Amino acid sequence: MFEACIGEFIGTMILILLGNGVVAGVVLNKTKSHNGGWIVITFAWGLAVFLGVLVAGPISGAHLNPAVSVSLAIAGKFPWDSVAPYIFAQILGAMFGQALVWIMYYPHYSVTDNTDLKLATHCTAPAIKHLPSNLASEIIGTFVLVLAILMMHGVVVQLGDSTNLVTAYPIDMGALGGIPVAFVVIAIGLSLGGTTGYAINPARDFGPRLFHAIMPIQGKGSSQWNYAWVPIVGPLLGCSLAAGFYLLLKSKGVI
Amino acid sequence: MFEACIGEFIGTMILILLGNGVVAGVVLNKTKSHNGGWIVITFAWGLAVFLGVLVAGPISGAHLNPAVSVSLAIAGKFPWDSVAPYIFAQILGAMFGQALVWIMYYPHYSVTDNTDLKLATHCTAPAIKHLPSNLASEIIGTFVLVLAILMMHGVVVQLGDSTNLVTAYPIDMGALGGIPVAFVVIAIGLSLGGTTGYAINPARDFGPRLFHAIMPIQGKGSSQWNYAWVPIVGPLLGCSLAAGFYLLLKSKGVI
Amino acid sequence: MFEACIGEFIGTMILILLGNGVVAGVVLNKTKSHNGGWIVITFAWGLAVFLGVLVAGPISGAHLNPAVSVSLAIAGKFPWDSVAPYIFAQILGAMFGQALVWIMYYPHYSVTDNTDLKLATHCTAPAIKHLPSNLASEIIGTFVLVLAILMMHGVVVQLGDSTNLVTAYPIDMGALGGIPVAFVVIAIGLSLGGTTGYAINPARDFGPRLFHAIMPIQGKGSSQWNYAWVPIVGPLLGCSLAAGFYLLLKSKGVI
Amino acid sequence: MFEACIGEFIGTMILILLGNGVVAGVVLNKTKSHNGGWIVITFAWGLAVFLGVLVAGPISGAHLNPAVSVSLAIAGKFPWDSVAPYIFAQILGAMFGQALVWIMYYPHYSVTDNTDLKLATHCTAPAIKHLPSNLASEIIGTFVLVLAILMMHGVVVQLGDSTNLVTAYPIDMGALGGIPVAFVVIAIGLSLGGTTGYAINPARDFGPRLFHAIMPIQGKGSSQWNYAWVPIVGPLLGCSLAAGFYLLLKSKGVI
Repeated sequence: MFEACIGEFIGTMILILLGNGVVAGVVLNKTKSHNGGWIVITFAWGLAVFLGVLVAGPISGAHLNPAVSVSLAIAGKFPWDSVAPYIFAQILGAMFGQALVWIMYYPHYSVTDNTDLKLATHCTAPAIKHLPSNLASEIIGTFVLVLAILMMHGVVVQLGDSTNLVTAYPIDMGALGGIPVAFVVIAIGLSLGGTTGYAINPARDFGPRLFHAIMPIQGKGSSQWNYAWVPIVGPLLGCSLAAGFYLLLKSKGVI
Repeated sequence: MFEACIGEFIGTMILILLGNGVVAGVVLNKTKSHNGGWIVITFAWGLAVFLGVLVAGPISGAHLNPAVSVSLAIAGKFPWDSVAPYIFAQILGAMFGQALVWIMYYPHYSVTDNTDLKLATHCTAPAIKHLPSNLASEIIGTFVLVLAILMMHGVVVQLGDSTNLVTAYPIDMGALGGIPVAFVVIAIGLSLGGTTGYAINPARDFGPRLFHAIMPIQGKGSSQWNYAWVPIVGPLLGCSLAAGFYLLLKSKGVI
Repeated sequence: MFEACIGEFIGTMILILLGNGVVAGVVLNKTKSHNGGWIVITFAWGLAVFLGVLVAGPISGAHLNPAVSVSLAIAGKFPWDSVAPYIFAQILGAMFGQALVWIMYYPHYSVTDNTDLKLATHCTAPAIKHLPSNLASEIIGTFVLVLAILMMHGVVVQLGDSTNLVTAYPIDMGALGGIPVAFVVIAIGLSLGGTTGYAINPARDFGPRLFHAIMPIQGKGSSQWNYAWVPIVGPLLGCSLAAGFYLLLKSKGVI
Repeated sequence: MFEACIGEFIGTMILILLGNGVVAGVVLNKTKSHNGGWIVITFAWGLAVFLGVLVAGPISGAHLNPAVSVSLAIAGKFPWDSVAPYIFAQILGAMFGQALVWIMYYPHYSVTDNTDLKLATHCTAPAIKHLPSNLASEIIGTFVLVLAILMMHGVVVQLGDSTNLVTAYPIDMGALGGIPVAFVVIAIGLSLGGTTGYAINPARDFGPRLFHAIMPIQGKGSSQWNYAWVPIVGPLLGCSLAAGFYLLLKSKGVI
């Protein structure tokens, strides 16, 4: 379990380093990738997942997302008592990844005045605040993510000689195994990200938001805690619906 | 058959959620993906097909398109009496996917005045109305799509213990099996979409157009039924030509 | 041989339909993909090759390019007496593909005045006319293309029961087999296309240029025959150098 | 060893031809790819690695980067006495690749006045000069690259009948084997390139900078040698940290 948590920690650290790294590159001033566009942001987040799977897949199954861990537990593929440590490692990894983003883009935070943009390099905010629709966005995005993952028929492999490694990715494809889930995340970003910025992962939003709140980021503004529940509750509802739907299809013999 | 129709319903729902979702993100006001560009739209539609195949492939073979079902029937790979239920499920799925787009982007529909753009998040319209050329666009685009699918040598696998699952996708490649058809759809979009917006799928156009006509979308305009026959007739002609051409090549021993 | 030439014809027709289709979409007026950018053009050309391989691969090995046929002959993998018929089929296919582009984008040709842009939807022109450098561009681009293809270890398979199918693509990968060469063409386009528009294929340039010369395209200008030799001679020199280099590496035991 | 060095030379030549070729296309005046955007630059560099692996993989394992060779040596997968010849071949290949860029884009160098842009087609420069943060960028970017490569479980295969070929890429996947590392490089570029332009490879920066210094590039400015140590020291530190971290994970039984 400890080894697996190391995997979740490293994988989520890389996920957030690359994911929020691209946001920093696109929105902060005087970077080479400034105003790179939505295609840059969405491809980078998808490939961030690809890299997280590449590095953490063989160690922990690369959940990298509490919504994935919870849905695998609901689907009976992951022990419930492993969920909490996985989530803790994911949040911690997300905070460390955010620290690396801050170190890398430090001088660019200094030359950017807009506090909303600085917060955007940490966590999500809705394009138009409209809570029912915002919540629906996070539910639907996560539903699509988790249903796709469950349909990929993750492989259960032996970790070391005592633990079962439960993964949602077809790691029998080796280094290509992260491609399907990366494409899923790119698709969700391109199509469903325009409203709330597609958290679809409570750790991805909460960890860096906490980092923003406690660290002395230059000229930072509010951490917007009043919105923070949406990218936690939405993904948890969405992943539960997807897992329930998956179990329903299974019980009816559809899959 | 009922299980397979569930698959077509879910797959097409996801296809339209992601496909028209990206259009909503790019054309409606105040989204994060506003004016994301043609590369954003075309990649998202291609990956929408990838996700539809990922989710519906193992259930129904993921036709997701009446033109695919019809051409497989012409090619002798899919029973004719399954065509109608498949098409019905595809249209219904497209309407439900459109409903999800509306829910997600609800506040953005409210802040967009242009009725053409709102219709564009549902169905296609020609860049320049010129019916012979518009019809040719849909015929040619669908011909390329279906010929490519038929050349992929879809696998016929056993569904449950009573039904044959007829798929146009190489699902023996597992979660990577949707990549070729996704690339085909991206290619068609990039190269051939500039004229009519590449419906190449009657259900993709008719289902959401019907949704637009019957639902109280904020400040909507005409559903443009006078053009609606082109993205139905064009794809059906194109898929028939492709299937006929495929059979001709087969009969001559070319393939 | 006749069957193989049908394959080359169809494959090159699709290559040019999609390849020059994207140029038409990006440069002609009032299209939905107008000014889509370099990323749109280069990805579409790469995926056009992917589709050509998908459709023509199992029939003819999908050379789709005289430079490929010639280099395979030099490398001893393709009979010299098949080169001429292959090239003839490629040029004919390119002309028919161009006809489809004209039909699809017909109304857009009518609303575009710039004769250079109309020619650009047929064949290449240098960004800055400087013949030594232009020729070097085509030599280098084709050298990279052909060396990559030769290093992919194309498979020789039996076609029907009498002909050997000589292909430069790893068609044992099934529908994924066109991905490597598609990526190669995208790479060349992105990196080396900025100077002459990367013909890297004599048939791709000559066939559509001939079509432009003989057909009554609305308001067309010169077909620029004085430049036409560069995208023929450059690719033939580049492919010969690559094949010679490949044979040298082989003779020295490097590969 | 000599054969392997030929492979490194060719592979790095192609890497730099395509990598700095795209920069030339995007930043020099009057090219067709002018101002193509960050997505064009990052995809081209990733696909440049793909092509380098395709061509040099079967010959030398396609390190193409002193940071890769050094980290493989630290990880015990590559003999230390092969490191120096590999690095020498990589630097030489980078210089020859740069020569090809100059030849291809020669007239475009002539019509570009900005000396910083001309230098940018050779080597990297920080967006904001801030040495601790710039160094951190190169360390972190290279750490991610090398950790991903080490986790891909490179295969050791027999080269000819006397040398072991040590590769960091899964070349048992044939022509698809370069895809994972290409995606890794695209991800690093998109997300982490905005600060220093992601050298993450000492040969990629030093070879072309030397070329810039010694060759009579039209209207060139300073070669900025005072910054040149960052893209050498940063990658070497980053790859050492990654290799050390990999060995630590191995010794603890995590992987």
